Amino acid sequence: MTTTDGILPTPHVLIVGAGFGGLQCAKALRGRPVAVTLIDPRDYHLFTPLLYQVASCVLNPSEVAAPIRKVFRGAPNIRYRQDQVVALDHAARTATLASGAVVEYDACVLATGSATNYYGNATVEQHALGLKDLTEALQLRNHVLTCFEQAATTDDESAREGLLTFCIVGAGPTGVEYAGALAEFVRLVVPKEYPELDAARVRIVLLEGGSRVLPAFKPRLSAYTARQLARLGVEQRTDTLVTSADAAGVVLHDGTELATATMVWTAGVRPRDLPEPESTSGPMSRIDVDDHFLVAGTTSTYAIGDVAAGLGHRGAVLPMVAPPAMQAGRFVAAQILGGPGRPFRYRDKGMLATIGRRAAVGQVGPITFTGVIGWLAWLVVHLYYLIGFENRVRVVMRWAWYYVRLDRPVRIILRAGEPRG
Amino acid sequence: MTTTDGILPTPHVLIVGAGFGGLQCAKALRGRPVAVTLIDPRDYHLFTPLLYQVASCVLNPSEVAAPIRKVFRGAPNIRYRQDQVVALDHAARTATLASGAVVEYDACVLATGSATNYYGNATVEQHALGLKDLTEALQLRNHVLTCFEQAATTDDESAREGLLTFCIVGAGPTGVEYAGALAEFVRLVVPKEYPELDAARVRIVLLEGGSRVLPAFKPRLSAYTARQLARLGVEQRTDTLVTSADAAGVVLHDGTELATATMVWTAGVRPRDLPEPESTSGPMSRIDVDDHFLVAGTTSTYAIGDVAAGLGHRGAVLPMVAPPAMQAGRFVAAQILGGPGRPFRYRDKGMLATIGRRAAVGQVGPITFTGVIGWLAWLVVHLYYLIGFENRVRVVMRWAWYYVRLDRPVRIILRAGEPRG
Repeated sequence: MTTTDGILPTPHVLIVGAGFGGLQCAKALRGRPVAVTLIDPRDYHLFTPLLYQVASCVLNPSEVAAPIRKVFRGAPNIRYRQDQVVALDHAARTATLASGAVVEYDACVLATGSATNYYGNATVEQHALGLKDLTEALQLRNHVLTCFEQAATTDDESAREGLLTFCIVGAGPTGVEYAGALAEFVRLVVPKEYPELDAARVRIVLLEGGSRVLPAFKPRLSAYTARQLARLGVEQRTDTLVTSADAAGVVLHDGTELATATMVWTAGVRPRDLPEPESTSGPMSRIDVDDHFLVAGTTSTYAIGDVAAGLGHRGAVLPMVAPPAMQAGRFVAAQILGGPGRPFRYRDKGMLATIGRRAAVGQVGPITFTGVIGWLAWLVVHLYYLIGFENRVRVVMRWAWYYVRLDRPVRIILRAGEPRG
Repeated sequence: MTTTDGILPTPHVLIVGAGFGGLQCAKALRGRPVAVTLIDPRDYHLFTPLLYQVASCVLNPSEVAAPIRKVFRGAPNIRYRQDQVVALDHAARTATLASGAVVEYDACVLATGSATNYYGNATVEQHALGLKDLTEALQLRNHVLTCFEQAATTDDESAREGLLTFCIVGAGPTGVEYAGALAEFVRLVVPKEYPELDAARVRIVLLEGGSRVLPAFKPRLSAYTARQLARLGVEQRTDTLVTSADAAGVVLHDGTELATATMVWTAGVRPRDLPEPESTSGPMSRIDVDDHFLVAGTTSTYAIGDVAAGLGHRGAVLPMVAPPAMQAGRFVAAQILGGPGRPFRYRDKGMLATIGRRAAVGQVGPITFTGVIGWLAWLVVHLYYLIGFENRVRVVMRWAWYYVRLDRPVRIILRAGEPRG
């Protein structure tokens, strides 16, 4: 027990990470008899499903990022703290922060999410561009725009070929959505604004280790997606792995070399920013938790979302996506408030991925849908889950505008100075 | 003479810089019988008068930056090239670019604008934050938000005092407008979202070397501005110079030490990115030009805008602001097209500065105005000159929204990854 503002002793809940899991947990504890400290080194909640639209010049960073303090305006029992937890002492119930401060807690919820996983391949890590946070999305936008600028002026034919070949590794939803958005960017912007370039020479190559694009979706939807991507000019190679990379391009597992200045890596994620002594020894390198998201061997430390190997339907490990993290966040909040002790039950609401204007795929239980219906479903769901009324209004206005104007205007090469310190 | 697309030999005009001067010059040459190459290391035209709104969390970077290629869509005789001119050979009429390429030209227009001027004060340069380009504006936004976050968690009372003291050096329009915007940010956001902080403890200190704020404006307007700033809680010290700075704060010319983690420097600008052999030996360190903007000693190199010491009304050196640069850009374009040989005549359209919601000052010739009238004039003029219909729509919607909601939502600490390669 700790005191908040020196008034009443209330249980202190430390939530580590303001992603989908952490944010839902904090929201569920809002106004309840607990004092919550929400810790994240980034001062915003990031709506990662739309990150590819920041990378492809459709949205501004601020339209997919809600300032945490704004989300919890008028919630006196929720405090945000810009910091990072580097170590936990489960017995003493204390957390050591990167700033050196030590915080006591009664319950701790680890929800630090995931980062791009290069699976230890050093050459890939050195040359790849990730698409998992805002810094990476802006880096990718900057990089792609720079490639077009360099291609427009170079006299070296083979250099131009590499600059105009964009390789995307991993055909899950992020890879597919980015490939489709990049193809639309090329089709809409390059012919009008790069008279030096021949848009037909631009290649977008999507590589997938599995036997089909969107391998987690039903085969029918994968086939539809492959056709839509082909229609947009995206080359697809399945059953293909990248073994190494250098400045000239990537080498595939069969020895093929692909000359490219751009390798976008969406082929995997891993838990990130785990404090000591948490280990990633669980399934898929995630933290082992029980069916109440309690970290193995502890009584007051929970782990939810991408960092934790929580169990869902029929004992399958929960997928590393937003819905299970959000459900787990609310579940753990109920546990902390002394709610029902029944084990977590995952409600699978299905999956969606968009391929381009008016084309998307979705599956909800046995039902699948494609085309305009899928696209509308995707649109409604994403707007619904986007945090903040203002962001929703702005994003829908942008989409409507671009739908009519066929434009991609957020396309400046942006450098942000670091804070002075 | 050079050939464009191998079709017809047309005079080749090299415009160096896509600021107000270079952009107007290129626009005036659009569709005319010349081939224009517009060179700028940044791929956007920046509307610098609204930069302080990016720094103060009102606008997104893309709302004050128009992609150059978008501005010149459908203009086949204007080509953009992302590069920088490092040297000119006036006799041979060639420019050497940073990339190593050499470009021939028939006429060259230097319009590289200006950067923050620290007047050689090394300690100030090391610790100050500028507000002259997008990188600096985002750095300032990141820095100020980080100060609030650190102040919210520190236990060190004197550190908090420094973190909550914001010092702005230079009370020209940029310094005044940023001070007002920061004061509004503090008033609107801090009480609602930083329960750890006492907004009344935040200090904004505006320092000016001259005897009054907005020294270029009429005394009546300076007095009005000083009252409005005081109403917003901005402390003002005139006849005050900064002599040195360190991490703990700034030292004033009378020995006073001001503990602050933030020194925003808007006290001066200097020409930037000048190619060899141009020198800044002219008045105010600008390039010497004749009354046709021809660089002294050359017959085909012009210099306009902040880099050039062009002459305006009654032989006074033109001010380093947008209107004379724009007028000079159009004038030089007419010269290049063989237009009238009469000397340049500056049409002074007046000056405007805004202090906050519904308060601004303006002067047009003998007329001065303040308050809501000034604010409306400021609003109309800025929207009129903002490049791009879409930017105008977005900015006016943002302003309307914030006017009603009293919010400052573009307030995330943003880090943009550098392009790979």
